[in-house]
Amino acid sequence: MSEINFRIVARVIGILLCFEALFMLLPLSVAIYYNESDIYAFLLTIGITAIVGLCSTFIFKRHSKQMGKREGFLIVSTSWIFFSLFGMLPFLIHGDIDNITDAFFETMSGCTTTGATILDDIESLPHGILFWRSLMQWLGGMGIILFTLAVLPMLNSGGGIQLFNAEVPGITHDKLRPRISETAKRLWIVYLSITVLLIVLLVLGPMNFFDAVCHALTTTATGGYSTKQNSIAYWDSAYIEYVIIIFMLISGINFSLVYHAALGDYKKLLQDEETKWFLFVVLLATAAIAAGLFISGQIYGNAEKTIRTALFQVSTCITTTGFATADFAKWGPFFNVVIFCVMFFGACAGSTSGGAKTIRMVVVLKNTANEFYRHLHPNAVVPVRINRRVISYDLVSKILAFLFVYVLVVAISALVLSSLGLSFEESFGCTLSCLSNVGPGFGRMSSDFSFEIIPTLGKWVLSFDMLIGRLELFTVLILFSPYFWKKS
Amino acid sequence: MSEINFRIVARVIGILLCFEALFMLLPLSVAIYYNESDIYAFLLTIGITAIVGLCSTFIFKRHSKQMGKREGFLIVSTSWIFFSLFGMLPFLIHGDIDNITDAFFETMSGCTTTGATILDDIESLPHGILFWRSLMQWLGGMGIILFTLAVLPMLNSGGGIQLFNAEVPGITHDKLRPRISETAKRLWIVYLSITVLLIVLLVLGPMNFFDAVCHALTTTATGGYSTKQNSIAYWDSAYIEYVIIIFMLISGINFSLVYHAALGDYKKLLQDEETKWFLFVVLLATAAIAAGLFISGQIYGNAEKTIRTALFQVSTCITTTGFATADFAKWGPFFNVVIFCVMFFGACAGSTSGGAKTIRMVVVLKNTANEFYRHLHPNAVVPVRINRRVISYDLVSKILAFLFVYVLVVAISALVLSSLGLSFEESFGCTLSCLSNVGPGFGRMSSDFSFEIIPTLGKWVLSFDMLIGRLELFTVLILFSPYFWKKS
Ligand SMILES: [K+]
Ligand SMILES: [K+]
Repeated sequence: MSEINFRIVARVIGILLCFEALFMLLPLSVAIYYNESDIYAFLLTIGITAIVGLCSTFIFKRHSKQMGKREGFLIVSTSWIFFSLFGMLPFLIHGDIDNITDAFFETMSGCTTTGATILDDIESLPHGILFWRSLMQWLGGMGIILFTLAVLPMLNSGGGIQLFNAEVPGITHDKLRPRISETAKRLWIVYLSITVLLIVLLVLGPMNFFDAVCHALTTTATGGYSTKQNSIAYWDSAYIEYVIIIFMLISGINFSLVYHAALGDYKKLLQDEETKWFLFVVLLATAAIAAGLFISGQIYGNAEKTIRTALFQVSTCITTTGFATADFAKWGPFFNVVIFCVMFFGACAGSTSGGAKTIRMVVVLKNTANEFYRHLHPNAVVPVRINRRVISYDLVSKILAFLFVYVLVVAISALVLSSLGLSFEESFGCTLSCLSNVGPGFGRMSSDFSFEIIPTLGKWVLSFDMLIGRLELFTVLILFSPYFWKKS
Repeated sequence: MSEINFRIVARVIGILLCFEALFMLLPLSVAIYYNESDIYAFLLTIGITAIVGLCSTFIFKRHSKQMGKREGFLIVSTSWIFFSLFGMLPFLIHGDIDNITDAFFETMSGCTTTGATILDDIESLPHGILFWRSLMQWLGGMGIILFTLAVLPMLNSGGGIQLFNAEVPGITHDKLRPRISETAKRLWIVYLSITVLLIVLLVLGPMNFFDAVCHALTTTATGGYSTKQNSIAYWDSAYIEYVIIIFMLISGINFSLVYHAALGDYKKLLQDEETKWFLFVVLLATAAIAAGLFISGQIYGNAEKTIRTALFQVSTCITTTGFATADFAKWGPFFNVVIFCVMFFGACAGSTSGGAKTIRMVVVLKNTANEFYRHLHPNAVVPVRINRRVISYDLVSKILAFLFVYVLVVAISALVLSSLGLSFEESFGCTLSCLSNVGPGFGRMSSDFSFEIIPTLGKWVLSFDMLIGRLELFTVLILFSPYFWKKS
């Protein structure tokens, strides 16, 4: 391998920052519209971000455009980091957050669509800042669609998840541009359409236009940032809750399938094995939690509301959105275990959701069933099939390695958090919540929906968890492998 | 496949029961020697067990001796169950335990070398009963040596662990007898020698002969039953603790390697990769826990005793022995996470220890490192090597499937326990402790070292965990697979 071409990395990051500055014109407009104190913060941030972005873009313009895998890995990982570094400036300049650790955590939580927050008085924030939090998640979701459908296949990374995206046309190895734009454009149109449709539906309910826009942005991105401290519970509206449930579930499905369904081709969606499993797990977990709530006497008003509450928490956790209508972390150990399993599970590949993803779990479950069969018939060849297609042995192994690393990261991260004084449940809960990009806290972190009280080191570990969870582990972790930096 | 030959299963179980009755003559002798109230209980149990055993052996004598894999799986799984069903009779007849759930739990915990107990006043038991508890563990350990080194390879089961036992000669597929007896005999001699040596060393310290025998039996078997409610802490002796630490670690090493080392061939042991990793993890975890104790100010008298306490708990948990010199479950979340990791890890394959086993973890770690390499060089062929030998892809996949099922069983079992009212930590702690055949409890179960307060259903689930953990999961779980019972 040749040396890493850092110049092209710097140039791409420069372009990214230019886009970030452009998108920041939106919260600036909101700030100007409401004429609030955050106008200056956005103006200054846009200025800084645009200057750094433009300089980086033009200084490295004339240099070699050769780009290989390693540059790809570097660009993807540093994209989210640089986006956060500049995206956190409005919080700091406006003074909503007074230290870099918290500001970085909040911004990384935003652009990875995690939604964990260190703020404990959301309603006091100006509209521009609130809108920026939501927009970051929406942009992060857009980035993740581009990443999983176009960049991952090229990098051959991510524990085999890319091969399930049947929609991805053959992308050539050395060039990013050719076919990506076409696929990405189609999916972004779906993404945008869902968002607009949701805004309309929310405005029809008891939500004002501003809140509707913000929640539509964070629902479609399965992000979970809210404009209210009490999240969706604030509205106490069955209509809002059902609408959000449906759109969280839609946002948990492979966007290619949603695209085809939107064009009238429902067949692909209805016959997709991953979607079926995903919905099956939603129903199963909802039944378990609803039953548990009834048995333990934790009734929410009436039967309908109790079942709705169960369905909402399962949907929000499995799609890794992280909205809340109840403090489910307080329900008891049984519910926590179910929620943990569901958070680990995640929704479908090719969506904006985090977690291990249904498809990986299904492949591993099928492979395990085959392993039992092979115990009795050692010479039998029994491949794993998804949607009638054979999944190669190599891919199964990649997926198993992915899950192993996932569990390993959970263990190491929980170990660090527990050494900082977090309880057993808090350590595992917050790690899993951040690594799977879900968002809600556990234990003390669940009471006020805020991660504020976690020590500084813990916040950096969790920020790192969000990043590697969002980028399917290997994409980031490979930067820590000696192979990556070795000249050979 | 033909029909399952239940008759040969019944005959083998009959023979096993005859042996159990024979071995019970030992606790009977102890009871007679101390002239205590448990003589009658053992006499009656021996009578019942011998009659059932002899009947089963002779009734099914004339029938077909054809034995295949499925009969093998059935025999192994039911062996431990029937051994427990008859082995629990002395507890019930003598009245030490007043219900079948608790008696079965205690006996299954014994013969699987788990050592979790529902008794909360061990010292009140007569000597015969105490000896029977220890002897059960020793016999269980003996059974497990036979199982991993001879039966597993034949059944091609257990997540690939058998292939590492380089000592196992080619055993033909259809017959149990030919080479097993030779290998097993050699290893049992090692097992017996270690036990005798340990008795001598313990008697030289402040332990009486009876306690020395009982503890030697349960140390070599990595069982963990003690004759004192406070376990090894009762003696408060540095000598006893160091002796037990050393013998727990020896009992955690592959017995084939111990055998060769005992004959003067140290080279194999010193060069063995699994042993090196095992000892490395012991040192690493001890350092982490000792450092944690010092930092958190939980000092045990002086520095030496604090480090010794850390080393003891790590050794007892990683070798899945389960003796205690401190209530480590109360140390705090950080320590619990370390202990959990160590319990999951386990010691070496081919020992009497439980858990996932070091070799499996090493293979998976190496495979993961390779997966990173393959991300950058997709066409490179980089096999996993252990002791310079290549581990086949098929085997790596088996091991990954094993670990996945392990985690799955932990999750399901913890879910059931949490639904019965156990806390989050108790549910996961007790499940892992039983599944890995370690023994100590967590949360409320750690205070008096007793599982008594767990609800009935929970005790049965944990008994089942002990059984499937002891028999490397697949051997038992395959009985629940439809493939097993299907005629084809
Ligand atoms: K989220
Ligand atoms: K044990």
